[in-house]
Amino acid sequence: MALQKVDTYPCYVEPFHVDFTGRIFMGILGNHLLNAAGKHSQRRGWGIGALNESSHTWVLSRLSIEMEELPRQYEHFEVKTWVESVIKLFTNRNFAVLRPDGTAYGYARSIWAMIDMETRKPCDLLKLYDGDIVNYIVPEDEEVCPIAPHGRFRFKDAELVRTIETYYSDVDINGHINSIKYIEHILDLFPQECFAKQFVQRFEIAYKAESYLGDTLSFFMQKVDENETDIEVRKNVGRDETPQGEVVCQAKVRFK
Amino acid sequence: MALQKVDTYPCYVEPFHVDFTGRIFMGILGNHLLNAAGKHSQRRGWGIGALNESSHTWVLSRLSIEMEELPRQYEHFEVKTWVESVIKLFTNRNFAVLRPDGTAYGYARSIWAMIDMETRKPCDLLKLYDGDIVNYIVPEDEEVCPIAPHGRFRFKDAELVRTIETYYSDVDINGHINSIKYIEHILDLFPQECFAKQFVQRFEIAYKAESYLGDTLSFFMQKVDENETDIEVRKNVGRDETPQGEVVCQAKVRFK
Repeated sequence: MALQKVDTYPCYVEPFHVDFTGRIFMGILGNHLLNAAGKHSQRRGWGIGALNESSHTWVLSRLSIEMEELPRQYEHFEVKTWVESVIKLFTNRNFAVLRPDGTAYGYARSIWAMIDMETRKPCDLLKLYDGDIVNYIVPEDEEVCPIAPHGRFRFKDAELVRTIETYYSDVDINGHINSIKYIEHILDLFPQECFAKQFVQRFEIAYKAESYLGDTLSFFMQKVDENETDIEVRKNVGRDETPQGEVVCQAKVRFK
Repeated sequence: MALQKVDTYPCYVEPFHVDFTGRIFMGILGNHLLNAAGKHSQRRGWGIGALNESSHTWVLSRLSIEMEELPRQYEHFEVKTWVESVIKLFTNRNFAVLRPDGTAYGYARSIWAMIDMETRKPCDLLKLYDGDIVNYIVPEDEEVCPIAPHGRFRFKDAELVRTIETYYSDVDINGHINSIKYIEHILDLFPQECFAKQFVQRFEIAYKAESYLGDTLSFFMQKVDENETDIEVRKNVGRDETPQGEVVCQAKVRFK
């Protein structure tokens, strides 16, 4: 018997997980979403653990979070997650961030690929475990995710604003700079006043390449309009082998 | 009727909370300890919430963690906490980090002061709430914390090894650089090889002064022996008003 398609996970806003305005850090919220994704797929037999045995793993490609309001210190909330669609090499997974009364703080969309850990190439999701994943697809009209799809990035005259070294705390169990740390480093580019007067209403990130402990990360910013900024992160800019640097990720931050 | 004196909180090692060796980050472990402390005192009526109403708050002065082994990704563990003693302006709170079978991964000690938020001066803990806190003291022979007391620091020829800016993600709801972030920044001073070959067996920190968003933090290191290093963190070194910088915290890191 197949499991239900949608799971909901209780979350809580810890004291060290809020910014100076008392709102949850976007990186911490992202972490809650990724945990929910991990548990949801684990429970259905295609979590990281099961996959590693068959030498496959999930790779996060896109994450877009849009919030009407951000949960505050000591608040309880829930993360609901489900699979919206599977398109051969990619799956779209959605999230709702819910208040105790069931209304939404906001929503999120994500795109994941499954890769073979040896070849690092993407796999056909519809072939894995006899296409079991399709049993969990929830049609768009059953579970609504009423936020815009992932946007496109067009970098023309982005300006280098910061270059940082990467250290021990930046790196995950795979030796890669972890997905959440990029979110932290990107929001750290903005001055305190932005967060004092407004909040991050939408945050989008597209992961393009891995970076590793010891890589430098250079952040290029490009203003879209008064409230929206695009950021491109490149690694090892200026090193001989990559004078332009390699694009590691791209992000969009919208304040409201 | 007084509550029991000792509480135990379940914890879990999330995927993004481990380092490249799969062990929990010391900062994350510290966060679990501080959460346990917060809940334990909250439940007895002298948590931050209750205190803020009477314009008092807890300030962490010392934290020393000593581990035989660090919990690993996906492991469940428990944090047990109790008050060891109260000495007018300070209270000693201890912790045990326990495996599911009740054996100890390790222990921790902490010292806290209660301050008046207006005057920023410490208060007599024995006078607050008619000395209610003494009802929760657990004698040393009832709950054992078999690790060395907090050590002393003697900085003689510490060498400046890094200066960093502080940003949005470093700051807590009070606008201070948060206690956990110092732990991260301090461990980031060590090269990857240290963590690959050994683990942080003992971590001590003494919080001396607050720092704020925009302060620079300078890290001075002094080798004690092959496995042990002392670190002093000073803020705003070289600025006109404080050419030597003000000491923000001091730490000891021992690898095993």
